[in-house]
Amino acid sequence: MASQSLPVETPEQVVHRLAKSGRAAQRVLAALPDQAKAAALRAAAGALRAAESEILAANALDLAAGEANGLSNAMLDRLRLDPARLAGIADAVEQVAGLADPVGQVIDASERPNGLRLSRVRVPIGLIGIIYESRPNVTADAAALCLRSGNAVLLRGGSEAVHSNRAILAALASGLTAAGVPQAAVQLVPTQDRAAVGAMLAAAGLIDMIIPRGGKSLVARVQADARVPVLAHLDGICHTYVHSAADPAMATAIALNAKMRRTGICGAMETLLLDAQFPASADVIAELLDAGCELRGDARARAINPRILPAGANDWDTEYLDAVLSVAVVDGLEAALAHIARHSSNHTDAIVTEDAAAAERFLAEVDSAIVMVNASTQFADGGEFGLGAEIGIATGRLHARGPVALEGLTTYKWQVRGSGQTRP
Amino acid sequence: MASQSLPVETPEQVVHRLAKSGRAAQRVLAALPDQAKAAALRAAAGALRAAESEILAANALDLAAGEANGLSNAMLDRLRLDPARLAGIADAVEQVAGLADPVGQVIDASERPNGLRLSRVRVPIGLIGIIYESRPNVTADAAALCLRSGNAVLLRGGSEAVHSNRAILAALASGLTAAGVPQAAVQLVPTQDRAAVGAMLAAAGLIDMIIPRGGKSLVARVQADARVPVLAHLDGICHTYVHSAADPAMATAIALNAKMRRTGICGAMETLLLDAQFPASADVIAELLDAGCELRGDARARAINPRILPAGANDWDTEYLDAVLSVAVVDGLEAALAHIARHSSNHTDAIVTEDAAAAERFLAEVDSAIVMVNASTQFADGGEFGLGAEIGIATGRLHARGPVALEGLTTYKWQVRGSGQTRP
Repeated sequence: MASQSLPVETPEQVVHRLAKSGRAAQRVLAALPDQAKAAALRAAAGALRAAESEILAANALDLAAGEANGLSNAMLDRLRLDPARLAGIADAVEQVAGLADPVGQVIDASERPNGLRLSRVRVPIGLIGIIYESRPNVTADAAALCLRSGNAVLLRGGSEAVHSNRAILAALASGLTAAGVPQAAVQLVPTQDRAAVGAMLAAAGLIDMIIPRGGKSLVARVQADARVPVLAHLDGICHTYVHSAADPAMATAIALNAKMRRTGICGAMETLLLDAQFPASADVIAELLDAGCELRGDARARAINPRILPAGANDWDTEYLDAVLSVAVVDGLEAALAHIARHSSNHTDAIVTEDAAAAERFLAEVDSAIVMVNASTQFADGGEFGLGAEIGIATGRLHARGPVALEGLTTYKWQVRGSGQTRP
Repeated sequence: MASQSLPVETPEQVVHRLAKSGRAAQRVLAALPDQAKAAALRAAAGALRAAESEILAANALDLAAGEANGLSNAMLDRLRLDPARLAGIADAVEQVAGLADPVGQVIDASERPNGLRLSRVRVPIGLIGIIYESRPNVTADAAALCLRSGNAVLLRGGSEAVHSNRAILAALASGLTAAGVPQAAVQLVPTQDRAAVGAMLAAAGLIDMIIPRGGKSLVARVQADARVPVLAHLDGICHTYVHSAADPAMATAIALNAKMRRTGICGAMETLLLDAQFPASADVIAELLDAGCELRGDARARAINPRILPAGANDWDTEYLDAVLSVAVVDGLEAALAHIARHSSNHTDAIVTEDAAAAERFLAEVDSAIVMVNASTQFADGGEFGLGAEIGIATGRLHARGPVALEGLTTYKWQVRGSGQTRP
């Protein structure tokens, strides 16, 4: 016996095996009543709290390895768990348990002249693949949102967080299975071989949707290679257009908040468009500079304030995710719409104006997932939209756009109730 | 000058050029009011009627070439136009003009505690690519549905219908442009080079969605190669399960209709599951045989009627699209659900029963785009569902499922109306 080696599964075989067992578990999950799913998530939250010492010990292993491997301080910070962060993760799982379950909602219903009764009913999508980096909280967040909406989930975290992710999953799973959720409903790809990511991206028919969570290079790779539908955004090149009829104080407050509240989030403003007829551009610019923002402008912006650096051609297509902002002066709404049509990443774009007609035209014509009037682009967030929690923000055009929460993790089926109808 | 040859565009360059001009035209189209779009489609229907002689002459060229190239009679029939068929095409365009425009519909709206007013509003998807074969009516049908919902369309018809398609498009375009729709909103790929199809399938970011219309090999190629989202169904392996508590006369009528009304449509039943406890299986089988249907069954079915041929393993996964049906005897609802979960193409599956609990369980657990109780699967059709007209039936899980009509050709955006809110 000892001389016989066991056949070793390839990463693709591992992914296919897990996907098939995940799909089978999803069918069991789909039949669970709402209260059972909610109770399972509450049990999972409790198990996360109870496993604090194991999870923090596992996280310490990842942190030590990360330091040895020379991870940046920013990466180490994303990786780091402490009692407060872990409590936050458990609280988030509990909050998802409290959200309304979209599964079973009737989207619309009708009766045909022949007596057939039709209804469109929300159902889970099936098996969701999550591909993510460093932040171990994604393990719990994504699993909770997928399960709440009746989906099974196949997680593929970054190798730098492998011990943390395993410990979080073990705790989650102990709570979930105790409450009747099949174990295979939440699985973590065990191999760190990068070929497993490729196998997930290629698993059309086995994985129904992939959601990447991480930096731009990860999202770009997923979008380029996936044969499975992807829900994601690559860039958040968000614009704020200050219209000629903007209230100056409001324009300043919104611009400052949209850029400087948190510069690293996808809803942060990256380009400020100032109308040539807006009288207070100098004040907006001065406030941004005084707040420590680097401004890069076109010639007309620099004519307003010489502290603005010259913008290069790439600046209009750059997501800085930092205290840097490109600024252009535009001639009216038409020019602003044209600039946005050319450079927006279709994430979130805003106008500041007291002119209702200009506002409505901007709302109608800007072709982005989120369009705003007189508000900071930093509101682009599922929690701020009242969705409870978001699995991500999508800038694609199909299925779901903008903040995606539980409803975006469902699809629908047509139910037809007849009384013996045959088609003439 | 004569010695200089012009640079020749590659098929990919042609597709990219048309896609870019289509996208630009779509932005103009999106701003047209509902009445203008409807009027343009009515003008297009009128232009189709006025161009009858040109279109029939062009069609005669295709028919002659098809006969010379040895096309089958079935293919020639699909290709053939006559005054009645052409009038039907024009009528269909006019009917689409009369449908309600989904663009601008508010899906839902809410107000946040901070006063932000949110609404999700239907918008066109953008540029739709249609890849189709032989039937020239698709040129007008697909164009009308895309335009009605504010989308531009890039059509790629089969080479066997090239003259017919061009003549239909020319007539359509003359009506549309006279009514203010930009010419590039409806375009036909001019080259017959098959590389143009590959270029469309790869045009992520330029084409927003591809809809294949044609036989299984076309759909399979599109699904296998596309980098652009595809709305389609590959197979319609539809089941009818006759439950133990089915009404015998209803079961017979539904089975006959689901199989024999039209055998070549995707909603035709391909497998009949007879419950072992259903007392009238022999009658259902006899009626199907007497109607000229070839039955291929498992051993238990063949024990009921020896005229049933033995089914091979592939029969349970075969879409016959003919007067052929596979028949199995199953032990109860559970076994029927298991058979369907294993073999259904997730298009349309039906149960016949007088037992409400069994019906509801079937509706809940069968994971197909359309699930039916006590009705013929041949009702799986956008017109029968009251959608007016359908662009196709989708068996994928995302964006739209089952019959897809105007609403499925839209997406949404979030509109946010504020009064100066900044995020804390």
